[in-house]
Amino acid sequence: MLCLQLVRVSLSASKFSTALPLAPISRVVPGTSRLRSSMAAYSTLSQSSKLLFRQLFEKESSTYTYLLADVLHPNKPAVLIDPVDKTVDRDLSLIQQLGLSLVYAMNTHVHADHVTGTGLIKSKAPDVKSVISRASGATADLYVEHGDKVSFGDLFLEVRATPGHTVGCVTYVTGDASDQPQPRMAFTGDALLIRGCGRTDFQGGSSEQLYKSVHSQIFTLPKDTLLYPAHDYKGFAVSTVGEELQYNPRLTKDEETFKNIMANLNLPYPKMIDMAVPANMVCGIQSKPT
Amino acid sequence: MLCLQLVRVSLSASKFSTALPLAPISRVVPGTSRLRSSMAAYSTLSQSSKLLFRQLFEKESSTYTYLLADVLHPNKPAVLIDPVDKTVDRDLSLIQQLGLSLVYAMNTHVHADHVTGTGLIKSKAPDVKSVISRASGATADLYVEHGDKVSFGDLFLEVRATPGHTVGCVTYVTGDASDQPQPRMAFTGDALLIRGCGRTDFQGGSSEQLYKSVHSQIFTLPKDTLLYPAHDYKGFAVSTVGEELQYNPRLTKDEETFKNIMANLNLPYPKMIDMAVPANMVCGIQSKPT
Repeated sequence: MLCLQLVRVSLSASKFSTALPLAPISRVVPGTSRLRSSMAAYSTLSQSSKLLFRQLFEKESSTYTYLLADVLHPNKPAVLIDPVDKTVDRDLSLIQQLGLSLVYAMNTHVHADHVTGTGLIKSKAPDVKSVISRASGATADLYVEHGDKVSFGDLFLEVRATPGHTVGCVTYVTGDASDQPQPRMAFTGDALLIRGCGRTDFQGGSSEQLYKSVHSQIFTLPKDTLLYPAHDYKGFAVSTVGEELQYNPRLTKDEETFKNIMANLNLPYPKMIDMAVPANMVCGIQSKPT
Repeated sequence: MLCLQLVRVSLSASKFSTALPLAPISRVVPGTSRLRSSMAAYSTLSQSSKLLFRQLFEKESSTYTYLLADVLHPNKPAVLIDPVDKTVDRDLSLIQQLGLSLVYAMNTHVHADHVTGTGLIKSKAPDVKSVISRASGATADLYVEHGDKVSFGDLFLEVRATPGHTVGCVTYVTGDASDQPQPRMAFTGDALLIRGCGRTDFQGGSSEQLYKSVHSQIFTLPKDTLLYPAHDYKGFAVSTVGEELQYNPRLTKDEETFKNIMANLNLPYPKMIDMAVPANMVCGIQSKPT
């Protein structure tokens, strides 16, 4: 039997306080629930005294932007992953309020559903450097490749090539070291979504390549690794490698089944692609990278 | 001068690996950025090996639902704060996949903008108990008051009365003990929103009471306390007491100014209130609490 307690305790005095009985009220609830599975659940809070982390959402394209900073470093250097043009003012205002120094505005890939905020950020904060993979073919200040390490203060992100949604997709993963956040955090772009994955029918997409990318570069991470995708359409914010290994409806299948699923999605033509992709090839138009 | 490094490191062998130069590429970026303030920034990840935490979003009403569980307890007991009727299936599916035992479906208050999911949850999982404040006047299985402690496994939430948006609003705060999550986490409902607060012009609302609630019950928490509101309309997910003490545009003002701001918001009549409030007074209609 599981005994859960609803107990009255004394809080600081308040005008809202009422006289509280001091005797604990114990309630016994059933120890077995219908809502059970055999899965190992992980504590889903990454532990680091250095890392300031914020997940930000752009509602129209359901895009997540991620802010990470080393707040124990004197300059509080920060990176922004997958900023959206429409929310640049919000993001820069937050960065300013938190006293952070934004150094890198990074993309996981050339997006087709929104315009990146990197160019607009550079126009407002010229010291910031835009970052994208060399394989993307897009223009940026700095190009990363598989195996690169992007440092901000005493924290760093590993770059893992995860092509398949687009030819230049990368996943950024927090460092594998005792002084880095534990569990690790992976920013997967559109390669792996929560209980899903990005489509593979444009921008050099390949379902075969995506399958290999996810299985070799993401599913090989520790099972408690926190997965932060570029989008979510159902209101989920985070998953873990362990969860997706067990519950991803596409990527738990064998490769042939996965390819068949991806070949038969019958998705509509992305409404923003003809505007967004050309813009994103040059940092969102507004930028003239040096 | 701040020296940030973009370094090539060796990752596990992959078909996507390319020959990588091993010499570090150091780039010097300016040590002063325009994006600076004097504010102390806090690491915004709560540390606990016990706590599984998920923030879930319902897009139509911009409502956050929070899942907390003690995953080191054999039964993995869980609580759900502010579930929405439309996302009950998503939430219960996630709880099942994670192997958790949902014990409490809790509301911070009687919502006016969506129908609570507590009744629907009880119809699908009868062992779950609905929880709301006694002061709300609503029907539920368990009523909490200021000073109560709601335990799930070895974790617990304190109940703090924070009326003002409605007469029965409470804030649930993780426990103040060394074996509880650090920093603390406060689920503020509509009492305190990120850079805002709930309106005070219906359901027994009072701007005077709200001001006192936030200042006496939330702003007195440690500055690194993570604030998780019931809603956000701009894509923010979390704030801290320190941030809101410095940047909340309403609650940083003196009480008279705050009351004037709240009296002159000229907000439209809430479109769902006439349906949602009567439903939420009885656990979202579907439930017949015992």
